[in-house]
Amino acid sequence: MDKIRRQERRIALTKILADNPNQLFSLSHFSALFDAAKSTVCEDIDAIRQAMEQFGLGRMETVSGAAGGVRFLPVKTPAATAKLLAELATKFSTADRIIAGGFLYMSDILFTAQVMMQVGDIFLTRFAHLAPDYIMTVETKGIPLAFATARAFNLPLVTVRRGSRVTEGSSMSINYVTGSSRRIQTMSLPRRAIPAGAKVLIIDDFMKAGGTARGMLDLAQEVAASVVGIGVLVATAEPEQKLVEDYLPLLILHDVDEHNKKIDIRPAFQE
Amino acid sequence: MDKIRRQERRIALTKILADNPNQLFSLSHFSALFDAAKSTVCEDIDAIRQAMEQFGLGRMETVSGAAGGVRFLPVKTPAATAKLLAELATKFSTADRIIAGGFLYMSDILFTAQVMMQVGDIFLTRFAHLAPDYIMTVETKGIPLAFATARAFNLPLVTVRRGSRVTEGSSMSINYVTGSSRRIQTMSLPRRAIPAGAKVLIIDDFMKAGGTARGMLDLAQEVAASVVGIGVLVATAEPEQKLVEDYLPLLILHDVDEHNKKIDIRPAFQE
Repeated sequence: MDKIRRQERRIALTKILADNPNQLFSLSHFSALFDAAKSTVCEDIDAIRQAMEQFGLGRMETVSGAAGGVRFLPVKTPAATAKLLAELATKFSTADRIIAGGFLYMSDILFTAQVMMQVGDIFLTRFAHLAPDYIMTVETKGIPLAFATARAFNLPLVTVRRGSRVTEGSSMSINYVTGSSRRIQTMSLPRRAIPAGAKVLIIDDFMKAGGTARGMLDLAQEVAASVVGIGVLVATAEPEQKLVEDYLPLLILHDVDEHNKKIDIRPAFQE
Repeated sequence: MDKIRRQERRIALTKILADNPNQLFSLSHFSALFDAAKSTVCEDIDAIRQAMEQFGLGRMETVSGAAGGVRFLPVKTPAATAKLLAELATKFSTADRIIAGGFLYMSDILFTAQVMMQVGDIFLTRFAHLAPDYIMTVETKGIPLAFATARAFNLPLVTVRRGSRVTEGSSMSINYVTGSSRRIQTMSLPRRAIPAGAKVLIIDDFMKAGGTARGMLDLAQEVAASVVGIGVLVATAEPEQKLVEDYLPLLILHDVDEHNKKIDIRPAFQE
């Protein structure tokens, strides 16, 4: 390979790091890839660290020791988080989102990749200190968001199914009561999906009474995993008392007024 | 803001472009963001174009005219595609993936973000010339892959549900016959999800007889959209005659031998 100029190396390095959040790369790896001395790679990493910080694009972390290296964390700044949540609240507030029954049409935004990737970065920023081993969600609408979160964490995503499927082998099933409609439903998880002792972060798109989150929590306990956190994009203000205790909502849905066609949804916190 | 040095600007630019594939940015946008002359931004873009090409990380495209600008396409090189598909074939071939009934356990890989993002880039590379407006899939296991594809294309993802849901408003439903088990099922799509005349690219994780893909094709036609392509990660070799005609599989599952615990799965093409 031709001698690679510094600027091309740094551009390629940035792209590789951005594409692989939370993945630990050894300096030797980059040193071999770019045919450059480790000290040169270190200088490159420092430059990237500075640029990422200056523009609020994320954080470089260095892990020392023989098994060490560098990794990129796509953490979001408080200002960027506040901006995104305000934009989302505005998007979710348009009157044409009201569906008969007081529901909110959210699917279009929940399946928009560029938005969900950013929300995943917010969950990383908020939950990284809990050091989960797995991200867990339940089908269907929470999947993109949970997937984006799993990508930011560089962790496997486990998707709980409603009912149980023959194509996934033996599975653990539980019955749970949906908090809002009080129906009994079944959810299941392939036995091989999560090992005992694993730390699980639950991510979902919406929480009303918290019955679904409660079900996932129970299911995790059945397979001897522990739930270290619960994050939801939107939680309703009512009922105030949810079936799970600790959870982090990003937006609070205060009211859907079908008669006057008004939706009151606001960021859950100010940073 | 302080005068930004060239290298920091280029690192930040690379990160922004990598995070927003297929999004058109005007030069004025970057010029304002970095407080730099447009000619300077052009030089930066050229350097990024060169580095991306040199390392096979994607392609920069320039769109001229008043509404023009630059965008980044995360296209995959033939070599990188071949390497990824060979790795996937190996991963899918381990004997412990065989589930009673001759099924293959694929969920862990289908929900691994770093792998699916790359498969999404392969579908972009193969289908970009068809210029779809929407990516369509059906719940559940195909969602991460379709989401990754939608991200690469910078397009909205539309997820067909099995049954129909009250929380998504009025919807179009059809009955379809699953090609392999010959059962009649229902799938539905919110009416507002796709406008008439839209061009749709169908993405799914698995195809046996093609009944599900056929159902999505019929559903798209019901809402007056046209299907421009169908991409699946894995298609079975048998039955050779599928219920849809044109589709692009990335891997072919030739055989699952439950007795001898052998799985024969191979890349569908050599590039």
